[in-house]
Amino acid sequence: MSEHTFNPTRRKLMQGIGVTGLAAVAAPSFAGDRYAKDVQWHQSHDFVIIGSGFAALAAAIEAKRKGIQSVAIYEQMPTFGGNSSINGGLFAVPGSPMQKQEGVKDSVDRMVDDQLKSGRGIADEALLRHVAEHANEALQMTLDAGAEYLPYLQQLGGHSAPRTYQTTVACGAGITQPLYKEAVQLGVEMHSRCRMSGFIRGDQGEVLGVTVETRYYADRKVSEGETLAIRANKAVLVATGGFSQNINLRMAQDPTLTADVGCTNIKGATGEAMLEMFRLGAVPVHMAHIQSGPWASPDEGGFGYVSNYSIYNFPHSMAINRMTGKRFMNEIADRKTRADAQLANRDAQGNPVPPLMITHYHDADKHPNCQKVLKYGVGWKFDTLEALAKHFDVPLAPLKAQIEQYNGYVKSGVDEQFGKPMAKAKDKYIKAPYMVVRLWPKVHYCQGGVKINQLAQVEDSLTGQPIKGLLAAGEVAGGIHGVSRLGSCSIPECMVMGITAARTVAAGKA
Amino acid sequence: MSEHTFNPTRRKLMQGIGVTGLAAVAAPSFAGDRYAKDVQWHQSHDFVIIGSGFAALAAAIEAKRKGIQSVAIYEQMPTFGGNSSINGGLFAVPGSPMQKQEGVKDSVDRMVDDQLKSGRGIADEALLRHVAEHANEALQMTLDAGAEYLPYLQQLGGHSAPRTYQTTVACGAGITQPLYKEAVQLGVEMHSRCRMSGFIRGDQGEVLGVTVETRYYADRKVSEGETLAIRANKAVLVATGGFSQNINLRMAQDPTLTADVGCTNIKGATGEAMLEMFRLGAVPVHMAHIQSGPWASPDEGGFGYVSNYSIYNFPHSMAINRMTGKRFMNEIADRKTRADAQLANRDAQGNPVPPLMITHYHDADKHPNCQKVLKYGVGWKFDTLEALAKHFDVPLAPLKAQIEQYNGYVKSGVDEQFGKPMAKAKDKYIKAPYMVVRLWPKVHYCQGGVKINQLAQVEDSLTGQPIKGLLAAGEVAGGIHGVSRLGSCSIPECMVMGITAARTVAAGKA
Repeated sequence: MSEHTFNPTRRKLMQGIGVTGLAAVAAPSFAGDRYAKDVQWHQSHDFVIIGSGFAALAAAIEAKRKGIQSVAIYEQMPTFGGNSSINGGLFAVPGSPMQKQEGVKDSVDRMVDDQLKSGRGIADEALLRHVAEHANEALQMTLDAGAEYLPYLQQLGGHSAPRTYQTTVACGAGITQPLYKEAVQLGVEMHSRCRMSGFIRGDQGEVLGVTVETRYYADRKVSEGETLAIRANKAVLVATGGFSQNINLRMAQDPTLTADVGCTNIKGATGEAMLEMFRLGAVPVHMAHIQSGPWASPDEGGFGYVSNYSIYNFPHSMAINRMTGKRFMNEIADRKTRADAQLANRDAQGNPVPPLMITHYHDADKHPNCQKVLKYGVGWKFDTLEALAKHFDVPLAPLKAQIEQYNGYVKSGVDEQFGKPMAKAKDKYIKAPYMVVRLWPKVHYCQGGVKINQLAQVEDSLTGQPIKGLLAAGEVAGGIHGVSRLGSCSIPECMVMGITAARTVAAGKA
Repeated sequence: MSEHTFNPTRRKLMQGIGVTGLAAVAAPSFAGDRYAKDVQWHQSHDFVIIGSGFAALAAAIEAKRKGIQSVAIYEQMPTFGGNSSINGGLFAVPGSPMQKQEGVKDSVDRMVDDQLKSGRGIADEALLRHVAEHANEALQMTLDAGAEYLPYLQQLGGHSAPRTYQTTVACGAGITQPLYKEAVQLGVEMHSRCRMSGFIRGDQGEVLGVTVETRYYADRKVSEGETLAIRANKAVLVATGGFSQNINLRMAQDPTLTADVGCTNIKGATGEAMLEMFRLGAVPVHMAHIQSGPWASPDEGGFGYVSNYSIYNFPHSMAINRMTGKRFMNEIADRKTRADAQLANRDAQGNPVPPLMITHYHDADKHPNCQKVLKYGVGWKFDTLEALAKHFDVPLAPLKAQIEQYNGYVKSGVDEQFGKPMAKAKDKYIKAPYMVVRLWPKVHYCQGGVKINQLAQVEDSLTGQPIKGLLAAGEVAGGIHGVSRLGSCSIPECMVMGITAARTVAAGKA
């Protein structure tokens, strides 16, 4: 996607803005609070959307379809799509067309139950149900826009049924790009390098607009353009994602998540817009629940190639502790269960000893990333178990015994060690040639954020009422998933809550 | 304590305040933000303290001792002492005088290690260490003020040594009352029924004072007096406690903590001052970690009589599941471990079946609350096991077998079921006559709150710098204890961080 705006009227809108930008704005001079009475508006739209990931794009498209005239997206990065564009492109939908084709029995209730389990008692059941009920509709929006999915479903960790679509490009850009194109065609104004720096409020505390720094360079954290005051006639939607890359904030919640710990998110996932909402009075919820992805590799940066490779391969792979040669987890348990189990793989001094995921090469190679994993040296192929054990210094005899034991479970269909569902492992024995990747959790997703309701409204912490003029959707909202989100449940949440936000605006309820 | 101010100058200060209070303050008209430029100050002090519990009183006393001239406390309730006055009066101190007397080996490191374990990896080690290092000094402040403690130490759940003092009155009022008296003698101004309703800031966002609603009636949530603008020349300290009684906020973090769930806190523990700090930009930390006390009884309201009774008796008691007659936990594990274990005591329909704590009557009766527990019908005495089993419908044979088994551990000194440390159970067999109370967790303590540093400064979420003019101490601060606080570690934290806040002000660092 281009870093330039696609809207022909923008240049005109930008004309006549003095170099001082907001310098003329009255006190207070700090960034925290700005009031409409002190501000001269530079631009105005009916619906102002901050961010350009799944939630933002879905909201923009739905808003246009519902007849909202002027819709604008402001994105801090030079390109559109946000962190969504580099996510795994995995989309859980209960009762989907592909489930019907494949004869998979599933339901909204079942998906919600799986998520409640992973949420460990504190997920928001009403919001989960709202999302699951509208997931098909959201999938359809992506299909209508031209998104393409692999022709089979996957069963991810913690899901009791195969219900996960994946884009053919195996990343979220397979969705954000078509949605972006669709949004532009519908006349949504697109502004990149525009960083939201605060809200502008009316006399009753309601949100009337935002300040936006223009020509923003995220790598240097510098704005070279003016600061604009953007009026939102109907509402502002904050859809800016999580804060996994905000080291201070994540360490405040979990001191072990230092800068050294890997992270799958783009650098821009720093959560300032969420922090601005807390300053308005939004309720912070579940901030301490930061999820690490148990499918990541310590041998590459970010989400990399291994993550999707291992998500696909876990059902028919064996994960072992390098020091013992033994399994240590159900390879398709929920994310938190697996990440916690992996983090316990340490030597006597407490140093990490990343565990190994072992797969039969000809099964592994069915995933498009397998050759890339080998090419970039973040995965290894071995013709014999002896070579594998020697390379990683794994004790051979226990490893051999473990493989025999595990293959017994493949045959019987019952994992007596960790209760892993073996249906997807049928006939997929661990045997030569072997494919191996190393595993170590990376910071991936923030369950925490601002509390929202089923209209995507943001609740005021003192009054319990929605903050007028403000909506939030996607990862920036918190509390929906509880302690731990299930894989492939972020896209449905983002899309559905983005669509929901647009409908709230269209219904005049924002 | 009286609901009237003890300071002779107050009447004078209140004179000349018009009936309109802040009515003349300029827009914005909502309560969220007020700026010094819009405000006419009604009162002014060097150090303004909001709340009157352990942290507030310790700060006030230390401030006076450090030569700060004008110190004032504003308390929303009619009486002083806050929730501190009804807490258990348990005070953990490593290397205390009584430990030396009793020959107990202990250290700051050991106490910090115990707390880190209970914090499950996310406690703030530096803050825990700061508190433990100054705990003796804080204890001394209470002794100097006239606080009286029982002549023996207790070993509470999760502590690896007996290090806990308890007030002779078995509640926190045994500390807050002497401290209050001391503070008044030192000339601290005391204002009750004064509810802090917001901050007043300068042009740079710094805190210059607060708005206070006067003649506040907490039961009706109504202020009958004026709203005053109180200038703090040096700093405002927020020491307002937790939010256990804020049903909306606690349910946002944990939907199971409905209004029906018992709570040990005073009604005023609703956290609005914390929410106001989030509006200033304080970092919300660990809000989802709300602790339930595993020593509470479902047969009485609040902290009641049973809590201290059972805290004292757990080391030499047996807790059993009523449906099986078997033990289900280490009776002196940390609070979260025990509360989680208790909450699992449910029938086939998921309804709670509160477990029983069984103690030999003549051991139980050593605690001052034993007779009150019997008198108020929240505990039961039985001459035979048969009568006990019949009364509570416990299967007799397994119960008998469990008691024999447990008494074997008393004899051997090793609990083979749950690894409970048995040192304090020596010679204390479970035998007739039996004393029984029922157990069910109650919401007790909020690990979450605003992030502070070792100077009690409140960090700004966007700049990472302290918010000028603002300090916080006690339960309103979050992140110190991690997932779960150990019992008797709140008083040292509140006292030390209150003292610390005063020293920060005295050093001109606020």
